[in-house]
Amino acid sequence: MRKALLATTVASTLALATFGSVIAGDDADNALLTRARALFKPLPADASTPERPITPQLVALGRALFFETRVSTDGKQSCGECHQPMYYGTDALPRSVGNSGKVLPRNVPTVFNTALQFSQHYGGNRVDVEEQALKALVSPLAYGNKDFAAAEARLRAIPGYRPQFEQAFPGQAEPVTAENWSKAIGAYERTLLTPAPFDRFLAGDTAALGAQAKQGLDKFIGIGCAGCHNGVAVGGQMYQKFGLTQDYWNLTGSTEIDIFKGRDKGRFQDTKKDEDAFIFKVQQLRNVAVTPPYFHDGSVAELPDAVRVMGKLQLGRDLSDGDVADIVAFLESLTGEVPAQFAAVPSLPIGGYKRQ
Amino acid sequence: MRKALLATTVASTLALATFGSVIAGDDADNALLTRARALFKPLPADASTPERPITPQLVALGRALFFETRVSTDGKQSCGECHQPMYYGTDALPRSVGNSGKVLPRNVPTVFNTALQFSQHYGGNRVDVEEQALKALVSPLAYGNKDFAAAEARLRAIPGYRPQFEQAFPGQAEPVTAENWSKAIGAYERTLLTPAPFDRFLAGDTAALGAQAKQGLDKFIGIGCAGCHNGVAVGGQMYQKFGLTQDYWNLTGSTEIDIFKGRDKGRFQDTKKDEDAFIFKVQQLRNVAVTPPYFHDGSVAELPDAVRVMGKLQLGRDLSDGDVADIVAFLESLTGEVPAQFAAVPSLPIGGYKRQ
Repeated sequence: MRKALLATTVASTLALATFGSVIAGDDADNALLTRARALFKPLPADASTPERPITPQLVALGRALFFETRVSTDGKQSCGECHQPMYYGTDALPRSVGNSGKVLPRNVPTVFNTALQFSQHYGGNRVDVEEQALKALVSPLAYGNKDFAAAEARLRAIPGYRPQFEQAFPGQAEPVTAENWSKAIGAYERTLLTPAPFDRFLAGDTAALGAQAKQGLDKFIGIGCAGCHNGVAVGGQMYQKFGLTQDYWNLTGSTEIDIFKGRDKGRFQDTKKDEDAFIFKVQQLRNVAVTPPYFHDGSVAELPDAVRVMGKLQLGRDLSDGDVADIVAFLESLTGEVPAQFAAVPSLPIGGYKRQ
Repeated sequence: MRKALLATTVASTLALATFGSVIAGDDADNALLTRARALFKPLPADASTPERPITPQLVALGRALFFETRVSTDGKQSCGECHQPMYYGTDALPRSVGNSGKVLPRNVPTVFNTALQFSQHYGGNRVDVEEQALKALVSPLAYGNKDFAAAEARLRAIPGYRPQFEQAFPGQAEPVTAENWSKAIGAYERTLLTPAPFDRFLAGDTAALGAQAKQGLDKFIGIGCAGCHNGVAVGGQMYQKFGLTQDYWNLTGSTEIDIFKGRDKGRFQDTKKDEDAFIFKVQQLRNVAVTPPYFHDGSVAELPDAVRVMGKLQLGRDLSDGDVADIVAFLESLTGEVPAQFAAVPSLPIGGYKRQ
């Protein structure tokens, strides 16, 4: 079935190049579109929810706070310090470097579209982007504050933020709080969506994907990748064992690390339950082509290698070079533009320079 | 003479408020403009020189490299890491934090308009922005490379830069070098100029400064600040002892620091000559209102306090609150817009993730 479809696609692509629109090609495209629509959804306008509404005031404040480093104990940490504008919302490191030069245990995932995932962090131990931000305030590896009050003192030492908090949280006696800080940042992050050629395809513009990307999409579904990597973010909607067919480090070259006393066991590190050993959140794949290195420990640098590893580890298949190239072409169609409100960094108010 | 002029300015301002344009006011404005033009110059279009030419290709490459962190040993350092877009080209710290969390001995000056200064660094031990950048590559506190070859290896590990280097340095057998890296970054920095209301004033638009800023300009000249802080960058054209009338730390609250085995002695730290003790480059004052904290050690957080300290330390004068407020109003007229090619951070090519 899949092979027949592919053959038709290739033939029709050649035909199209010569004769323009051809019924056979349209049929194949429409069949692929139908299969894709059953598994994936185009991006919404934003990732707000009834419980997590966004307003222009919240987003503007959150955009400033996202890049604000003075709320951290070493004066260098911010959301934007790990989720950098020049690296598609990552830091281009295998494992991140945080407060006072400490190396973090895992790779930084992109902030783009992350609010659409069903939980945050590789182990899913944060329910949403707001909780992720809030707990980073008191993480020794991130902002480093000993408690929320310490973070709030740093925030209140920058007078220019108070009117912005008052506008974003009207009617509150003391709006400059850690919780509101996290809500504003969450609101901003919920705007950081990156529509890509694949979204135009899902909307019905089958010419938005090239012939090889379509073959790759067909294989991505047919081989089984889409069994886990599906939904609006092409992943991020479930947990799965990393290394279904064998230990992941056999293929990734991952090294043991001290903080985990050996191998990173995923959700087990938090829950300590045996059934959670090596269980990770299935990562979203939007912008995967521009956000190497790959996996929870950044152990694989090249996308074709990461695809090959996943085929073997999760599906027990040795993907051919052609399969890998096609799937990579599809994954490249998940690359969107860097949002303008992220590429352009806001100017921040003065004050709060003394390290507390 | 100065007092008479001031009285005229104040009177004419009141008159203007009531009756519109008045000859006396125009005369006072023109007299102030004439005095200002003898001391200051408006910004040029860019800070290129015949020896340091710029091209669009050089600037585009330099803009990318400015924000590129993978050339550093900890993968976190870049020009943009200390000269941040959200803090007007500074890092909003008293003293900067560099490679692997090490604290630097001095405050980060803004990168804006710095190419117009006659030398770089507080001690002037870098002849231009290109030398400043180049030597940062092998500074243990900055990029941390053991030598230029190590930096070049990191740079060459990111394949996407090669075509950009080839375009910026046509005809070179191996253009991806540390020296070219610094030339490209220098070219970019030479575009980071920030035209301000004071430039419009110098160009003849006397309405570009408000009444208090004009009074402040008059005092800035008359009291003697402009004796050192003059020229196109309102400073940055000479050396001067910091603390002409008394030890600077009496008024700034500066603390002794280990790296200098006591007090920071300015140029003496490099030259070890007694006559260089406490000699610093006179800092440029463009954007001073938005780039606290102040002085080589970031010891003073508020601009009015910094003005007061300078009056006492350098001129032996106790400035009145009114003098300080007027001078601050003038200094605020030196605030320009963040250049678009700096506020918006470019997307960088993938690769080079392995820490060498």
